[in-house]
Amino acid sequence: MRVSVPCVLQVAYESRSHLRPSGLSSSLPGSSGGKPAYSFHVSADGQMQPVPFPSDALLGPGIPRHARQIHTLSHGEVVCAVTISTSTRHVYTGGKGCVKVWDISQPGSKSPMAQLDCLNRDNYIRSCKLLPDGRTLIVGGEASTLSIWDLATPTPRIKAELTSSAPACYALAISPDNKVCFSCCSDGNIVVWDLHNQTLVRQFQGHTDGASCIDISNDGTKLWTGGLDNTVLKQQQHQGIIFSLGYCPTGEWLAVGMESSNVEVLHVSKPDKYQLHLHESCVLSLKFAYCGKWFVSTGKDNLLNAWRTPYGASIFQSKESSSVLSCDVSPDDKYIVTGSGDKKATVYEVVY
Amino acid sequence: MRVSVPCVLQVAYESRSHLRPSGLSSSLPGSSGGKPAYSFHVSADGQMQPVPFPSDALLGPGIPRHARQIHTLSHGEVVCAVTISTSTRHVYTGGKGCVKVWDISQPGSKSPMAQLDCLNRDNYIRSCKLLPDGRTLIVGGEASTLSIWDLATPTPRIKAELTSSAPACYALAISPDNKVCFSCCSDGNIVVWDLHNQTLVRQFQGHTDGASCIDISNDGTKLWTGGLDNTVLKQQQHQGIIFSLGYCPTGEWLAVGMESSNVEVLHVSKPDKYQLHLHESCVLSLKFAYCGKWFVSTGKDNLLNAWRTPYGASIFQSKESSSVLSCDVSPDDKYIVTGSGDKKATVYEVVY
Repeated sequence: MRVSVPCVLQVAYESRSHLRPSGLSSSLPGSSGGKPAYSFHVSADGQMQPVPFPSDALLGPGIPRHARQIHTLSHGEVVCAVTISTSTRHVYTGGKGCVKVWDISQPGSKSPMAQLDCLNRDNYIRSCKLLPDGRTLIVGGEASTLSIWDLATPTPRIKAELTSSAPACYALAISPDNKVCFSCCSDGNIVVWDLHNQTLVRQFQGHTDGASCIDISNDGTKLWTGGLDNTVLKQQQHQGIIFSLGYCPTGEWLAVGMESSNVEVLHVSKPDKYQLHLHESCVLSLKFAYCGKWFVSTGKDNLLNAWRTPYGASIFQSKESSSVLSCDVSPDDKYIVTGSGDKKATVYEVVY
Repeated sequence: MRVSVPCVLQVAYESRSHLRPSGLSSSLPGSSGGKPAYSFHVSADGQMQPVPFPSDALLGPGIPRHARQIHTLSHGEVVCAVTISTSTRHVYTGGKGCVKVWDISQPGSKSPMAQLDCLNRDNYIRSCKLLPDGRTLIVGGEASTLSIWDLATPTPRIKAELTSSAPACYALAISPDNKVCFSCCSDGNIVVWDLHNQTLVRQFQGHTDGASCIDISNDGTKLWTGGLDNTVLKQQQHQGIIFSLGYCPTGEWLAVGMESSNVEVLHVSKPDKYQLHLHESCVLSLKFAYCGKWFVSTGKDNLLNAWRTPYGASIFQSKESSSVLSCDVSPDDKYIVTGSGDKKATVYEVVY
């Protein structure tokens, strides 16, 4: 008997062409140890080279040697979602219309210790997430409703249901502080739920096709989602309203101008940042030089500030007669233009 | 007479409290050269330290010494948008209901060489962007319509108007290939326009309050927007449908599982990536170990693959009897659980 596959995946399987170049690995040099190359470094210009692995690639602390099957859990339906408790004692398997709970603390053949009926009988569960204390399980799938299970009672019971307008949830994530649940919906929306009040906090159309997957940084400020629309979206939370931003043309740094008067220079991957305090009111515009070595910001405080990337040494300041609302830098980095609340524009020559 | 400020900015000015700690710079150590510290490094845990500047902070190639005002352009209305041509000959200033064009190639006092009437007479222009050839100008502001100006004709003329459902555009950006224009809307949407066909390609609700600013990477694959909702959104284009993703808990790397069978490991700031070719069909799930040193992916090809971060050396593989639809790693990195099309889950012990 052919195993049925959840419909969303099935559509993707059947309707899209596979992009992987066939026979690529065998036609490229760089095989090592008799195994054809399978890891390729793709440079910014698209050049593809087999990766030479460092000597500690497969050795050293924290690197597994292999994995050993220790339990088979016969759920009885296609298992589209799994999770394991922090205590590593319980495993939750999501199939059609129910999640089964398994105790894996003892060896030997297994039967589920509980069955949590959710969604409708014929609808697949697509994600289940456990809060770290192991007392709450959130389940989503081919339904517009998420179920929140209380596992602390003698018999697990649904303590809340969260209903959105999307027909299905493809993926779930819990914020590191366990206060918020994010649901990736089949209509491309990301729905943000308050787990304490069980209310929809907000939703946003992240993808033009289904939102398929999600992850959150450990500090909870960054959220990534992937979609069937070929895009990855990253959302980053800031403390304050953002009026202006610029991405350094040479990479690595994003500068943002805040309503609070701060300019912040954020590394695109590291959590630390530079905070620059020379504006005395809203930072209304911001523009990087094309060389990436400096950028300018303008403010409601009448100031034009030029800053060194990334640490923000003040290169020069110019005080205008009114709010400076906009700015631009010429592609040769020789001129700056500002637009002012004083009903004029000013052209500056940059002196090196 | 008080200068009027575009309404959106005005609301923000008046209704929000300023977040900048008052007197902070003078109460912190680290002043240098008599100037109080104004640049602070904020570490991941929120610790704030004055930044010691390197010796080449204000010296060296590409670092301006200062800027000299060379022209004042009396536009006659608050100038909310400015841009300068690649030739550095023309400046465009956007005010109320019109953009004025200035020739700055000669010294001396200035009057505009052209006036481009756009939007309605009382509505502010909020952004104007010039294509690099200097022949096309795109103008947006307090109106639902963007105007595209042909500047190559003897008298500039509107060659197209692009109308969206949002009442205003706060910022514009042009893709590096000049084919696409992105408009940041007051309703939080980002609208993507095809400049050749003058059609709306797509739009997405990026922010829950107005989208205030935007920038694009030089290679056109990354887009940042900032919003009045305190968030920065980054959208990254991929070649293919994304079924799964994970962010490395120790930072720097995002792994994505593609419908094409590839696993890609992307550096969050650099443009290069690793592409891993061991799956033979869709990559259905992906999960990082908590230590960040390795991650697992599972596929429609029945495989569980464990990979070294980031370069993807294959640590181990396990072939199951059917599609592996889901996986999880225990927080102590000792167990992996998979869910299968064969109606079962499998628990693996990770052997170090």
